[in-house]
Amino acid sequence: MRRHSHWIMALALVYIDYKRYYFTTYLFCPMHRTHTCWELRTNHVWSSVTLAWRADDIRELWWMAFVTLRDRYGVTQIQVEPDVARTIKPEYCLKIVWDVGARPAGQENKEMDTGEIELKATSVEILNTCKELPFPIRDNVDSSEEYRFKHRFLDIRRKPVLENIKFRAKMNHFTRNWFTENEFLEVQTPILANSSPEWARDFLVPSRIHPGTFFALPQAPQQFKQLLMMGWVDKYFQIAPCFRDEDPRADRHTGAFYQVDLEMTFVEQQDVLNVLQAYGLAAVKALVPHKTLKFGDEVPMISFQDSMDRFGIDRPDLRIPGMEIVDLSEEVGDSKFGVFANTVKDGWLVRAINLKGKSMTRKELDATTAIAKQAGAGWLAYMIIEDSSTSEWTDIWWGIAVRSPIAKFFSPEELTIITKKLDAAAGDILFFGAGDWHLVCKVLNKVRMYFRDIYEMVDDNELAFCFIIDFPFYEYDDSRERRDFWHNPFSHVVWWLKGLEVESLHDVKTNQYDFCLNWYELGSWSIRNHDPEVMVAAFKKVWLSEEDIKKKFGAMYEAFQFGCPPHGGFAFWFDRFMMIMCDEPNIREVYAFPKSNKAEDLLMRSPSVVDDEQLEELFVKSVFEGGE
Amino acid sequence: MRRHSHWIMALALVYIDYKRYYFTTYLFCPMHRTHTCWELRTNHVWSSVTLAWRADDIRELWWMAFVTLRDRYGVTQIQVEPDVARTIKPEYCLKIVWDVGARPAGQENKEMDTGEIELKATSVEILNTCKELPFPIRDNVDSSEEYRFKHRFLDIRRKPVLENIKFRAKMNHFTRNWFTENEFLEVQTPILANSSPEWARDFLVPSRIHPGTFFALPQAPQQFKQLLMMGWVDKYFQIAPCFRDEDPRADRHTGAFYQVDLEMTFVEQQDVLNVLQAYGLAAVKALVPHKTLKFGDEVPMISFQDSMDRFGIDRPDLRIPGMEIVDLSEEVGDSKFGVFANTVKDGWLVRAINLKGKSMTRKELDATTAIAKQAGAGWLAYMIIEDSSTSEWTDIWWGIAVRSPIAKFFSPEELTIITKKLDAAAGDILFFGAGDWHLVCKVLNKVRMYFRDIYEMVDDNELAFCFIIDFPFYEYDDSRERRDFWHNPFSHVVWWLKGLEVESLHDVKTNQYDFCLNWYELGSWSIRNHDPEVMVAAFKKVWLSEEDIKKKFGAMYEAFQFGCPPHGGFAFWFDRFMMIMCDEPNIREVYAFPKSNKAEDLLMRSPSVVDDEQLEELFVKSVFEGGE
Repeated sequence: MRRHSHWIMALALVYIDYKRYYFTTYLFCPMHRTHTCWELRTNHVWSSVTLAWRADDIRELWWMAFVTLRDRYGVTQIQVEPDVARTIKPEYCLKIVWDVGARPAGQENKEMDTGEIELKATSVEILNTCKELPFPIRDNVDSSEEYRFKHRFLDIRRKPVLENIKFRAKMNHFTRNWFTENEFLEVQTPILANSSPEWARDFLVPSRIHPGTFFALPQAPQQFKQLLMMGWVDKYFQIAPCFRDEDPRADRHTGAFYQVDLEMTFVEQQDVLNVLQAYGLAAVKALVPHKTLKFGDEVPMISFQDSMDRFGIDRPDLRIPGMEIVDLSEEVGDSKFGVFANTVKDGWLVRAINLKGKSMTRKELDATTAIAKQAGAGWLAYMIIEDSSTSEWTDIWWGIAVRSPIAKFFSPEELTIITKKLDAAAGDILFFGAGDWHLVCKVLNKVRMYFRDIYEMVDDNELAFCFIIDFPFYEYDDSRERRDFWHNPFSHVVWWLKGLEVESLHDVKTNQYDFCLNWYELGSWSIRNHDPEVMVAAFKKVWLSEEDIKKKFGAMYEAFQFGCPPHGGFAFWFDRFMMIMCDEPNIREVYAFPKSNKAEDLLMRSPSVVDDEQLEELFVKSVFEGGE
Repeated sequence: MRRHSHWIMALALVYIDYKRYYFTTYLFCPMHRTHTCWELRTNHVWSSVTLAWRADDIRELWWMAFVTLRDRYGVTQIQVEPDVARTIKPEYCLKIVWDVGARPAGQENKEMDTGEIELKATSVEILNTCKELPFPIRDNVDSSEEYRFKHRFLDIRRKPVLENIKFRAKMNHFTRNWFTENEFLEVQTPILANSSPEWARDFLVPSRIHPGTFFALPQAPQQFKQLLMMGWVDKYFQIAPCFRDEDPRADRHTGAFYQVDLEMTFVEQQDVLNVLQAYGLAAVKALVPHKTLKFGDEVPMISFQDSMDRFGIDRPDLRIPGMEIVDLSEEVGDSKFGVFANTVKDGWLVRAINLKGKSMTRKELDATTAIAKQAGAGWLAYMIIEDSSTSEWTDIWWGIAVRSPIAKFFSPEELTIITKKLDAAAGDILFFGAGDWHLVCKVLNKVRMYFRDIYEMVDDNELAFCFIIDFPFYEYDDSRERRDFWHNPFSHVVWWLKGLEVESLHDVKTNQYDFCLNWYELGSWSIRNHDPEVMVAAFKKVWLSEEDIKKKFGAMYEAFQFGCPPHGGFAFWFDRFMMIMCDEPNIREVYAFPKSNKAEDLLMRSPSVVDDEQLEELFVKSVFEGGE
């Protein structure tokens, strides 16, 4: 009867909403196997089934032998004849036919999904054998990344790699469906595009049909998506492959990376922000429901200036409790401590943070100083705050005492103001940075991040989004007369032409923003400029003439003349978002086939030397003399 | 009251399942506009709304003036003051605030979705003006493709272009969801890959970090997807960008194209076929429900040999009724007609088709002969079949007579056999091809296709899928000793090593197939070879040694040693499938930003000349002397 009902079920192609397995799995169940290694349960008892996949483990026990078969979905244990078992090694591909039985009461394996059934093989076929493995296939291997990537076809048999592949597929699926459901049109923009060396370095592709010319792989579909807005596409999105020929780094995949690219017409700042926020939160809830959102459904908004002043960086980790940077320039400017007083006299700054409730040894203080020095500081001043009743140091205020090599340079009144402003209590340590704004920000940020890590101040399962707003339009280095756009040169200038009539480029404001998560920049967004006159004026500020613009961005320049609607959008670093959601410290691991930290595909051995004839056809010549 | 209920509805963010608009449209409704140009109905009467998009038409009527505003969703007509109307031109971007009213009874415009309401602008703001258009924006323009592509930012304002963009988004969405729902994992494979010049010509990308070496853009993710099968990914798919540096053609986009790429482990022929068939049929039903499937849910399976013999081509248009090719070599081999007799004596063939029920003038017969000659025939013999009671020609059999310059060379018995074999009746015309197999196939195919077109034998709304099976593994030209793989060199050899022990390479069989639609090849699929020994033996047949394989396909060669499961998959030409479903004769039109028929992006002016410094950094030099 049981067998009967099983077959009726299979034949009827019933929708089996059990975990996440639908009948479609059965519809396309390959002929080499009738079930996956996760599927068999007691309701399959008396069925004859065929499983096929890779041998995971082979064991002999008394007069019996067992093989566990593993696939993408799970594991099943099969009893085979001992002499058959001896012909099988781990990683062999097997096809096994058998009858399902129930395990005797008490012998179930509760830890295995398929642990309630027992199988006795009626036929075992070895579909493929396996050479000795160069490294063991375990969740955690100690092989070097280089060695693993070279054998990626084995490395992807490790569970963490499969989990990342599955997560990425899920994230792609979720993202595209989310935007599609919200009426965004997916448009695939060209991958053979034009060179824009004014941003990052381009990957170039010589053209055979047009000798002497080159395509470039797009650094971003920026111009294409803006041109789409000239048509009827009022909401565009794409998970776009982007390419930058940069040196490898930890949070960006060398060569190619993916961004969730978006553009909308007739939008203002709040519209773009709404979409970004809604997508970010929805993705977290759908993909990593075990994570907590520090601010719930809110996303705090912090100005660039404020973020730099309070956290020393424009992508602050808001999970860190307190420890914000406090300005003391006014308070210490007249002190007898020459280093601080002179710094302030030079027009620079003195700022400090308060490491609450931690004590540090001499060695630990030295290590902290080393961090500050790495960031460019000459030295790191500190003050240890003690309880005045037990301290041998001067009593200052409300019963606390300050222990520090520099304490003697300050009057009790000055120390009182400093400790009060930093909300210092006994058991705290204050750290000081002095110098120009950039240096102080950089040093105190590094020290904060160092404390975050050594004192484990943040919860890895917590996510803290924030918006950084009010970015400057230009990056401007007075000393070197270097001028460049801070982020996106196509952004809208606040007040249009009038907004450019300012004394210092620092004062040009733009509707341009960053979206951050923990301490990563997740993407940036802006309202675009849609007026060719403003475009010309904005580029002139970085020494680009109207002729240059026509040459470099001719299509945009021309398109703007024909009724371009107001528009805006964002670019969202897909890979980095995944990296954070998956707690994956190495961005290379979010790809199925990553490039190494030397920008090579060690598995496929690319890049590689090509035939001279291939180059001849493309009208280029390799001029590297070194050889490989 | 009406106004009241409208606001309650909006505030409650009710799910409005009206046509396909959900509340999400409202959630992200941009601040420049409160509604789209499709949305307003009589239930919006009394609401104050803001629309913003592009002016389509401006008309003055008596003392009134009207502007129609058009966006992606529809059109709305607004009444404005005549002096305001005079400041507006078509294509201007406008933002208009107004109160919705109902049109007086009898004045509704039934042809317009928003034709029941009337709007009087309370404020009209010109957000952007528009220069004079270089060509009119109409559904059908007579501008050259070159001119249109150069102004693509205007060209995409034409409705057919928007429709294609929307269709492509829908097709992408449908396809990815279909495969995901069927448990396929989407994996993005690298775009910076390794050169494989043995297939098509590669696009190369010089490496800066590894001087003297090159990446190549992948012609297909073939090797990557097979390597995935070595891990736990038992079902992979991707809508993969692929790149081939080929000369432009009508059914393949130059440079980049997209394929639905798929691979599965532990499958046999029928499994792959099931997936392909199910996807193809589901896509047609979901995306073009107005089309009819000639064979319903069936997909006929035709062997390569059979297809060539019956239709002269390996991608037959099965919508054509009858007119199959019939072999007459035996029947005419002994005739007195020297051309046919000698052809057969030389070991070649005489074949014919029957154009049923058509009469042709001398001129039409000459035009048909010209088609045959284009295909390589020296001449095209024909026989006109007439009713013997009215014909002045010899009575042959069952009352028909044959009129032909060559009729006199045949005996009545021979003519009887020929006409009988071709099922000829009065009113038909028979056309003959003579020569080697390839030539006869080619000529009669061309003639068949010519008849299909001039007599409009097929219904454009009909779709006829078919599978072409039993492809030869090798393409083999005895005369030139040229040997190559017919399609996919990684395919499974039937009977493994034994299957390669044959006298002629023609006889090597492989599990490799084509999927065709109407008269296009839509993709191909195969069961792969997973045995390194067979791989080496198969490549040896085309003069590639084991060392060559290790060099060219090192990763595959090595991966095969470590328990590679049996696997198979397919590559499906996404763009071409869309082209057929959309009745779009020009494949360039399925892209938002196409390359021209000269492989250029006329809008972005790529490829282009780049700076020498860029090339220097990449250790390459342009060696084209001509200049541009």
